[in-house]
Amino acid sequence: MPTRNAFYAQSGGVTAVINASACGVIETARRHADRIGTVFAGRNGIIGALTEDLIDTSQESTEAIAGLRTTPSGAFGSCRFKLKSLDANRREYERLIDVFKAHDIAWFFYNGGGDSADTCFKVSQLSAAMGYPLQAIHVPKTVDNDLPITDCCPGFGSVAKYVAVSALEASFDVRSMARTSTKVFVLEVMGRHAGWIAAAGGLVEDHGIPVVILFPEIEFDQAKFIARVDALVRAHGYCTVVVSEGCHHPDGTFLAEQGTRDAFGHAQLGGAAPVVANMVKEALGYKFHWAVADYLQRAARHIASKTDVQQAYELGQKAVELALEGQNAVMPTVERISDAPYAYRIGTAALADVANVEKFMPRDFITEDGFGITERCKRYLKPLIQGEDHPTYVDGLPVYVSLRNAAVAKKLGPFELK
Amino acid sequence: MPTRNAFYAQSGGVTAVINASACGVIETARRHADRIGTVFAGRNGIIGALTEDLIDTSQESTEAIAGLRTTPSGAFGSCRFKLKSLDANRREYERLIDVFKAHDIAWFFYNGGGDSADTCFKVSQLSAAMGYPLQAIHVPKTVDNDLPITDCCPGFGSVAKYVAVSALEASFDVRSMARTSTKVFVLEVMGRHAGWIAAAGGLVEDHGIPVVILFPEIEFDQAKFIARVDALVRAHGYCTVVVSEGCHHPDGTFLAEQGTRDAFGHAQLGGAAPVVANMVKEALGYKFHWAVADYLQRAARHIASKTDVQQAYELGQKAVELALEGQNAVMPTVERISDAPYAYRIGTAALADVANVEKFMPRDFITEDGFGITERCKRYLKPLIQGEDHPTYVDGLPVYVSLRNAAVAKKLGPFELK
Repeated sequence: MPTRNAFYAQSGGVTAVINASACGVIETARRHADRIGTVFAGRNGIIGALTEDLIDTSQESTEAIAGLRTTPSGAFGSCRFKLKSLDANRREYERLIDVFKAHDIAWFFYNGGGDSADTCFKVSQLSAAMGYPLQAIHVPKTVDNDLPITDCCPGFGSVAKYVAVSALEASFDVRSMARTSTKVFVLEVMGRHAGWIAAAGGLVEDHGIPVVILFPEIEFDQAKFIARVDALVRAHGYCTVVVSEGCHHPDGTFLAEQGTRDAFGHAQLGGAAPVVANMVKEALGYKFHWAVADYLQRAARHIASKTDVQQAYELGQKAVELALEGQNAVMPTVERISDAPYAYRIGTAALADVANVEKFMPRDFITEDGFGITERCKRYLKPLIQGEDHPTYVDGLPVYVSLRNAAVAKKLGPFELK
Repeated sequence: MPTRNAFYAQSGGVTAVINASACGVIETARRHADRIGTVFAGRNGIIGALTEDLIDTSQESTEAIAGLRTTPSGAFGSCRFKLKSLDANRREYERLIDVFKAHDIAWFFYNGGGDSADTCFKVSQLSAAMGYPLQAIHVPKTVDNDLPITDCCPGFGSVAKYVAVSALEASFDVRSMARTSTKVFVLEVMGRHAGWIAAAGGLVEDHGIPVVILFPEIEFDQAKFIARVDALVRAHGYCTVVVSEGCHHPDGTFLAEQGTRDAFGHAQLGGAAPVVANMVKEALGYKFHWAVADYLQRAARHIASKTDVQQAYELGQKAVELALEGQNAVMPTVERISDAPYAYRIGTAALADVANVEKFMPRDFITEDGFGITERCKRYLKPLIQGEDHPTYVDGLPVYVSLRNAAVAKKLGPFELK
């Protein structure tokens, strides 16, 4: 059987472990050199495919590809670029197929979140309709943990570990200072619509830390929130608040919004922490401190969850195996077998069931008062932050790889992005 | 020789390694049980001494005390409470001596920054004048790294490592997204007057990251800053800005100030990052993200520098040894012998030379344009972030100890804090 080529691209916000999935894809493809020729990567994600700006990953050494497993960020570049609907911009989809055809690409691996799953699904449908059947496999990735069907999403476990560790450490700090100084510490974390990341802050409760979580799933009730903070400070001398960037008032307005929107049309958030901290100060007079973790949380490979790294790799590996089995328009998933001891297997979901579905925190993962997580939620979260996978350090800093990212010669004319 | 007791207290903002110094003090005292009876600790720092709220550390197990070495925060509680001058409030100093006398305390170990060194020095002077000679030894601690004489301060190396690692990781993130998304990432770090912490962000330059540092030592020049950011983004596609909370305009006003002051009368800062980020957006239109690390940076024991942990311990140990040698009004210091390979020894400084002196970044540690660090600064910083000292993890979270902190029976009447 003659070999054919594969295309891999990273999409949307990058994570501490998306490169571990890339590593899984490329290493597995290399083990199947009898069927897979070259893995091309899109420079800056799908934009690289549209502009025929392909990276030849075969020029990367075995060591460099192995190093992806411990390197955060997107090694080939990612982008926030959502393909329009087929009706609105069929031209883009046709261009993708043209590029794939020109480079004899038979497999399309797209590593991203919900929007990317949708794109991946459409590419699969259109390529069939255009007589160039392509196997499109989606590799799940999102720190937001909001993809359906899969038990969890690569990237989430490491952010959850970062948030839990950071909340624990900062809470110890506040606890020791609370007698004369800061009594309320507010940590803002990511999560536009789903509160999974904020929920991870609730894990410190088992370490004796009084914590209030503000979820996007629960409408913000200022009076109730202030009362809860006051009760905790009176009982413990201090408290920690973990606020999701997506936390919003009953009328839908976010606690803080910078007023700008990203390429997907999502509001770009940031700054809920100072808003919440000042609310506490004004209502209760307590001294506060606040932190906004922003990119630090999703890039924090140094404190990645070993479980997360392993699953990211295995899902990349499985994607290639599914492709070689002849599957199309699917996404490998994590299927949980048991909580404790934690056991899982890698399963498969149809992209038709994944695209454009968001998975929120179930109501029974949130305590009745809306400010904490339940035992059920803790059982869900705990395995996902388990294990450490420390990178190697040289001169005090982790060793992260930067690839050569050699360009593939173009075969087509230019294409204008609109 | 009959045994006499020691008193240990933590002062000011806590760090990832102040407990390692406590560990050094207590373990060393326990090895000298022939001379040192009990180490009492002040609950919430010096307030514990004033209110006679002492903790009996002899009730803590060997394992618990050993666990302090890997536990961030102040295990006995710290406080921001500056003793007034002798003239303004002699009553407080006399009360301290009364408490020390009541509990047969011969040694006073005070673990803190510049203000505490001053208090420690005054206590030593007054106790002599009052006919109850006390040996007062200051154990250095401050993430700000601004104590004089000592080559570096425990707490700083770990924050420097946190900042360098975080800046590296977030820069990798931004680099991979810059084609369509964030081009400028702003990280705000601590440092009211001295730019040591911000300087650590400059270490990522050797990893190919374009970075701009805003120091408190350099008056902020908006036009020059914007031009520098623009040049870097044009050359690299993105850049990272590390801004010190103490960065200020030529007229002395901080880039951001919350308007509140702490117990020492210092302005409580926070929020320089969003100010800087919005400046960039308005002048250049680049998409930005910003993070404020706040307490996360100084509490981050999970990414502590091994060098820092070791020095924190050794300075605690040396403090006890100096006490047993009969020294008074001194502070153990780190004396650097060589940069590479790094070598140091523990020395001694007189508190008269330490109290109320702040050590700023030398001008030749900062590049001529004021936005970066020089090779000389890098040679200084690199050894301080070297080595990892990972805590033990259970269920995905680090194991940090909480002590019993059993109270010592009071012998005196109450004392009102003013």
